[in-house]
Amino acid sequence: MPEPASVTPSEVRRLCRANEFNKPTTAAYSDGHTQANLLILPEKYAQDFRNLCMRNPVSCPLIGELDPGDPTVPEHLAANCDIRTDLPRYNIYKDGNLLETKTDITAEWKEDSVAFLIGCSYTFEAALFAKGLIPRHSELKRNVPMYRTKVPLMTTGVFSGRMIVSMRPYPVDSVESVREITRPYVRTHGEPVAWGEKGARTLGIDDPEGTHPDFGDPTEIREGEIPIYWGCGVTPQQVVIDSEIDGIVISHAPGHMLVLDLLVKEVCA
Amino acid sequence: MPEPASVTPSEVRRLCRANEFNKPTTAAYSDGHTQANLLILPEKYAQDFRNLCMRNPVSCPLIGELDPGDPTVPEHLAANCDIRTDLPRYNIYKDGNLLETKTDITAEWKEDSVAFLIGCSYTFEAALFAKGLIPRHSELKRNVPMYRTKVPLMTTGVFSGRMIVSMRPYPVDSVESVREITRPYVRTHGEPVAWGEKGARTLGIDDPEGTHPDFGDPTEIREGEIPIYWGCGVTPQQVVIDSEIDGIVISHAPGHMLVLDLLVKEVCA
Repeated sequence: MPEPASVTPSEVRRLCRANEFNKPTTAAYSDGHTQANLLILPEKYAQDFRNLCMRNPVSCPLIGELDPGDPTVPEHLAANCDIRTDLPRYNIYKDGNLLETKTDITAEWKEDSVAFLIGCSYTFEAALFAKGLIPRHSELKRNVPMYRTKVPLMTTGVFSGRMIVSMRPYPVDSVESVREITRPYVRTHGEPVAWGEKGARTLGIDDPEGTHPDFGDPTEIREGEIPIYWGCGVTPQQVVIDSEIDGIVISHAPGHMLVLDLLVKEVCA
Repeated sequence: MPEPASVTPSEVRRLCRANEFNKPTTAAYSDGHTQANLLILPEKYAQDFRNLCMRNPVSCPLIGELDPGDPTVPEHLAANCDIRTDLPRYNIYKDGNLLETKTDITAEWKEDSVAFLIGCSYTFEAALFAKGLIPRHSELKRNVPMYRTKVPLMTTGVFSGRMIVSMRPYPVDSVESVREITRPYVRTHGEPVAWGEKGARTLGIDDPEGTHPDFGDPTEIREGEIPIYWGCGVTPQQVVIDSEIDGIVISHAPGHMLVLDLLVKEVCA
């Protein structure tokens, strides 16, 4: 098998459909292409969820949605793509509890299922890599650390909650570069929302060493570095799982994204 | 002169241009049409401001913008409209201080001036009126009370700050109606962001009687009523005025909006 970066999106999806993609993550696959978080909800909550994304685009950047009951991903996002089979792993939730993790959700797909695709930070991380600003968690071969904040989302319909952010430490004199590099990625969280001690206070995060995140893995904030915080696609997932909606909710399993044909340059401003 | 509600937008603008619109506010004029907040900045800050709106659409719902140096409002928003003359009153700021209030800014308009039009809550208030849910400040013939919150905006480039919200008290059993009525007005702040005691705490507001707002006028929260909070167009205005940008910033004077040809039904989702 070739290097992950050079595997095409359609090949990743074919492997997923055949249950032959057995890697721990889709990160680093299909260089130059966008990856997406997945959320599947009953249709009666679709408009509230659309509004949640529209009102909170930094936390919930909506890249696309599928027609109710139709598992076909829009052609311009991914050709010949069935949302029920073409991700490596799915999590299935009911009443806020994880029921099961599966590689195929054909049995769970319903006539009123609506799938939403949400921008993923892997996209802007590639841009940081390209400029030599290696995300610490990649260097450490860990998951990115994530934190619950006290910042409320803009409520809509049945959905309300608080922002979750991801954190990457960088030297204090790299902050402006990091901001500029990630700013154009408006459909994949874009530039940071806060940084440093003051930023942590604003968000209500108290973990100066980066060793006690609420989700993901601990990291290392080294001498001369400060934490930088971005909007995070776990936010809509957590909001939907935590909300008391009827029926099941399906998401990608962490790290197991949908690899799109959509080019990274197409999600930039 | 006819009732304010039946004066056409073009007639309001003609009166403004002739310096003959001497009312305290444009509120209640041109029923069924949208009104807009105005912000004029030097072009070098335009992209950061656009991003601010895109990342904070509840506080900063961008309805349109003019080409740099061109004072002509886009035809679909308002026909034959010159942004320098067609509002009743303008505020001119430098370094965060109000320099002057004028009825015409032709002398202040520069080659690098860019004008932004931002949704205004007058639009959804008309919908509340129509359902018999009269905003208290209208009943009292006062300005709406507004509060600074502790909720950070999604930072972008040179701009950062905190949300400002407007508040209207309603009986507790009207909350769901009020939410539903204002929800569709996504380009004019939309549904409330928070309500009641818990909402006030989330926003960091401590004024249970509604008598000590940070902007606007005191109101009355009566027996059985709770405060309901919405995003507010004063937010981007305050962010821009408070930021340390070079050059002058011009806004509409409070209550003196641009009356657009754009219909209210065109700004609904």
